[in-house]
Amino acid sequence: MKATIDHIGIAVGDLEASLRFFRDALGLDLDAPEEIASQRVRAHFLQAGETMLELLEATADDSPIAKYVETRGPGLHHVALLVDDIVAALAALKGKGVRLIDESPRTGAHNSLVAFIHPSSAHGVLVELKQKR
Amino acid sequence: MKATIDHIGIAVGDLEASLRFFRDALGLDLDAPEEIASQRVRAHFLQAGETMLELLEATADDSPIAKYVETRGPGLHHVALLVDDIVAALAALKGKGVRLIDESPRTGAHNSLVAFIHPSSAHGVLVELKQKR
Repeated sequence: MKATIDHIGIAVGDLEASLRFFRDALGLDLDAPEEIASQRVRAHFLQAGETMLELLEATADDSPIAKYVETRGPGLHHVALLVDDIVAALAALKGKGVRLIDESPRTGAHNSLVAFIHPSSAHGVLVELKQKR
Repeated sequence: MKATIDHIGIAVGDLEASLRFFRDALGLDLDAPEEIASQRVRAHFLQAGETMLELLEATADDSPIAKYVETRGPGLHHVALLVDDIVAALAALKGKGVRLIDESPRTGAHNSLVAFIHPSSAHGVLVELKQKR
């Protein structure tokens, strides 16, 4: 499949501290935040060329991001690949025996379609597939 | 500073297993591997648009990558930002109180100049700066 890297998700424990580095020290441009209610996170995208950085801030104690930060500390969380046809991509991966977290796409940030691949099938990496619409 | 994301480094425990996913299942194009003797790693770059994935395979037991995989398991390791002037970028970051692993650049993959920022200054993320030459 043809894929480009859309963004890198970073699990954040202290949003202001993360912004002091990525926005203030590195000088990357910050977009307006977007709430993703289903994941109980607020996403803060920073522009860095074709690929963005996505700072993920938990909005509830039971958010997957809150749990991740509690267990592993803040840091790199996932990589998102942009594909043309996410349904076809998921079917192709499933046909190759890849374990999927989301069998069918759901709505992600920027009203995109997204689905996650299980890290056990991706050598420890949490991979998101994304299709713009 | 103006920066784009050059690549995402992935610490690999079993190269063949990682290639089965990233090359065979996702279908990303794989470059010829490159040995980085100073880091005791072999880098396998996969093309995915402007930003690449770099599979990092330890070539010695005391390689930083071997230690990383032993402690945290395989997975996302670092993000590399491409800058125009790495010496100026390091000076600017140092002036802002950012803790650097490399005070001055050294030679990285593809004969580039690279320097790492300490994760304690980057909210848990290992950030590499890279300048082509």
